[in-house]
Amino acid sequence: MSKKDEKGISISKEKDFSKWYTELIQKADLADYTKVSGCIVFKPKSFAMWEKVMELVNQRIKKLNVKNVYFPLFIPEEYLSKEATHVEGFTPEVAWVTHAGKTKLNERLAIRPTSETIMYPSFSKWIRSYKDLPLKYNQWSNVVRWEFNNPVPFFRTREFLFNEGHTVFATQKEAEAEGPKIIDIYKDILENYMALPNFFGKKTEREKFAGAEYTWSLECYLPNGKAIQGPDFHHDGQIFAKAYDIKFIDKDEKEKYVWQNTWAISTRMLGVMFAMHSDDKGLILPPKMADEKIGIIPILFEDSKKKVLAEAKKIKKILNKYGVFIDDREEYTPGWKFNEIEMSGTPLRIEIGPRDLLKKEVVVVKRNTSKKYTIKISQLTKEIPKLLDEMQNELYEKAEKLLKSNIVKTDNYKDIIKLIKNKKLILAPMCINEECEDQLKDKTTAKVINIPLEQPSLENKKCIICNKQADYIGYIGKSY
Amino acid sequence: MSKKDEKGISISKEKDFSKWYTELIQKADLADYTKVSGCIVFKPKSFAMWEKVMELVNQRIKKLNVKNVYFPLFIPEEYLSKEATHVEGFTPEVAWVTHAGKTKLNERLAIRPTSETIMYPSFSKWIRSYKDLPLKYNQWSNVVRWEFNNPVPFFRTREFLFNEGHTVFATQKEAEAEGPKIIDIYKDILENYMALPNFFGKKTEREKFAGAEYTWSLECYLPNGKAIQGPDFHHDGQIFAKAYDIKFIDKDEKEKYVWQNTWAISTRMLGVMFAMHSDDKGLILPPKMADEKIGIIPILFEDSKKKVLAEAKKIKKILNKYGVFIDDREEYTPGWKFNEIEMSGTPLRIEIGPRDLLKKEVVVVKRNTSKKYTIKISQLTKEIPKLLDEMQNELYEKAEKLLKSNIVKTDNYKDIIKLIKNKKLILAPMCINEECEDQLKDKTTAKVINIPLEQPSLENKKCIICNKQADYIGYIGKSY
Repeated sequence: MSKKDEKGISISKEKDFSKWYTELIQKADLADYTKVSGCIVFKPKSFAMWEKVMELVNQRIKKLNVKNVYFPLFIPEEYLSKEATHVEGFTPEVAWVTHAGKTKLNERLAIRPTSETIMYPSFSKWIRSYKDLPLKYNQWSNVVRWEFNNPVPFFRTREFLFNEGHTVFATQKEAEAEGPKIIDIYKDILENYMALPNFFGKKTEREKFAGAEYTWSLECYLPNGKAIQGPDFHHDGQIFAKAYDIKFIDKDEKEKYVWQNTWAISTRMLGVMFAMHSDDKGLILPPKMADEKIGIIPILFEDSKKKVLAEAKKIKKILNKYGVFIDDREEYTPGWKFNEIEMSGTPLRIEIGPRDLLKKEVVVVKRNTSKKYTIKISQLTKEIPKLLDEMQNELYEKAEKLLKSNIVKTDNYKDIIKLIKNKKLILAPMCINEECEDQLKDKTTAKVINIPLEQPSLENKKCIICNKQADYIGYIGKSY
Repeated sequence: MSKKDEKGISISKEKDFSKWYTELIQKADLADYTKVSGCIVFKPKSFAMWEKVMELVNQRIKKLNVKNVYFPLFIPEEYLSKEATHVEGFTPEVAWVTHAGKTKLNERLAIRPTSETIMYPSFSKWIRSYKDLPLKYNQWSNVVRWEFNNPVPFFRTREFLFNEGHTVFATQKEAEAEGPKIIDIYKDILENYMALPNFFGKKTEREKFAGAEYTWSLECYLPNGKAIQGPDFHHDGQIFAKAYDIKFIDKDEKEKYVWQNTWAISTRMLGVMFAMHSDDKGLILPPKMADEKIGIIPILFEDSKKKVLAEAKKIKKILNKYGVFIDDREEYTPGWKFNEIEMSGTPLRIEIGPRDLLKKEVVVVKRNTSKKYTIKISQLTKEIPKLLDEMQNELYEKAEKLLKSNIVKTDNYKDIIKLIKNKKLILAPMCINEECEDQLKDKTTAKVINIPLEQPSLENKKCIICNKQADYIGYIGKSY
């Protein structure tokens, strides 16, 4: 018996999101576990989507003249320790290599949790003059952060895949000007491909990247009421430049420290996409992210089988650029195949039987709404792209409605606990005192997710924790 | 001062190949070292070529219906140890993770030296029925093999990048039928893109992949007289299937072990390509592997600068599909720029000055021969692709001549030592006795590289070591 015989998700998304999600991941054949705790196998379907993300990012950063490189997986302990905040942020979760074969290493090696500390000593060596700047490198890599909390497939795994952009500039102005360009790239991919609405802002000092001057993030709001951090952009100022001695002789013949940025999108976003759109019947994918957008299920009877299959093949040929497969297995019933194709996340399913054939039409079913469309075969090349676009938009709009309808503004601390309990994303005034951030977390288990760059007037706005003058209005909520 | 000011390779390829090669790698900006011994940084130029190789392989294996996946970097010690030959082959050079943060792990984890042992427990779980077969997966990954010998950039590094194809079949016949298809793919990429002639054959029992029934390899012959193993195909038979319990219920309802293959091409091939074609002036690249195939160097004088630059830009536009850059820096002399572009490996350089402009022509210089061609600007779109093709072929033919002119046949042991000293690749008869292989190695420092599948008659052929009946005629030589 094939594994594929175990069908259906046993728990509803609304009742128990976590259980629903982990079942979805396995039953829709996206990932699996191994004996290595906290790590997952990316199965062909999810890895193809990661390849799609890589392609989209590569196309876009190439236009910014960013070059792909590859640095070693290993980081000597001495390198990792040079920037104090960075080392503090990352060493608690670093995996250490201590032996090679039977030989104990003189200096233990960290598996990169991110590559600043292995790249920047090289940058220090390579960069001499203003002529060497800007230097814009990117790397696609596997990184390890040894989570001791409960790992969740894609959302939080001990090994994950990401891009890490590392760019170096002669001036702060140039470095900071890169931020909006990178955010636009990530926003485009999230919104127009993954159908993921998001909210943008600056992280608090507490929550920013270890070693950055400031961090900008795109965040998503999941159906379980939790925010989850998506792609981010870190302006590192001269912090790493000073720790790793990255200097250049400028046009004025003076020696200066460089200005740096780092930015990333990770495989976590695949999980966000799966979790956002899917339902109790299985996976729902934005058509633009699905390799195979159409599955044809011919309804086979002995006397008409040949004709129906021939027509299915013709339709496959006509629509081939959308990625089409025909499920012509005879050992399964059409009903069983419908269930399977719904689990698999194929955006459109085409049903064709002998009666349809007589009328020269087919039934097309849109995965997200289960709505059926009877379409003349001659109209398919016109109607199919419309349905795919429609579905892409519907997924975005549904997720956007979820996000917008759950944002609540309040100036009142008393509301916060109740709103958090009700899984809301709150916009509320806070001050920059880190103790207030700590108190918020202790009392509500929520945190400041990020702070919109454009702020309304803060006149008369008081910090919801200490009641003193507020410094910003930020998004507050529970978070992964 | 920019690093780019240090020009030229100080040692000739013929005099000291090793030193020449390591200088080439750094001065042509292909790779650099870090403090992590035995690992290299892939700089943009070499990484772009690896991306090209990945693209070529992906296009081709997709047609064989192979799907890309990603398995964890870590392998639990228990998994690594299941197949005796495999563990014996790899554990001496495995890097071990023993700690995460401050916590000692219960079971230490190997960094994958190759992924059989982490993939196959999953295969055992996933494969139930003949309907699940064939299963054809491929992974692009970084692997670590802790070489204790002198590492050489690209040729032999402690971390390297490769594809690892892992395919599973219901019958031995199907599994073995995959071999020639995979070898054809690799051969096509080596010969038609990297301009690398090679010789194909089966590895001896001693030299085959640890865990395989047999290994086929494509091997190259380097200008220093050493053979170097290129891409390979391993037929694993049922060895791993039995060790990892990978079974399926066949159509006849009987439970059977599966049949498996693995196959790989690694970043080593980049090094072989650099070493094969380049000369004392720097890098030479097969045009098909160079992103930027043409560099335009305008000869700038104050009075004609504007016109010359405008024409250079027009030419760039016309030829843009070949990847063109204009070196319009005024702080360097044309002569300096010629040296730089020769070091960089750009296949064609176009020189254009005011006098050329008057005659509506340019000078094109082919990197491999330094031959100059005066070409009418109106003829460029016709002549440039011809020159690129010509250069691609010339590089292959030169390397092929090197290979062919160094293959020597002998039946006589007395010749071997001298031939090895003269860096020849020898075709000689041997028997399958492993002691003979050991003796060959001890006495000559050479080994059996591989054995052509098509063998001539072995009548009256005696093993060059023991003088008993020979079992094959194989390639013998020094090797990386």
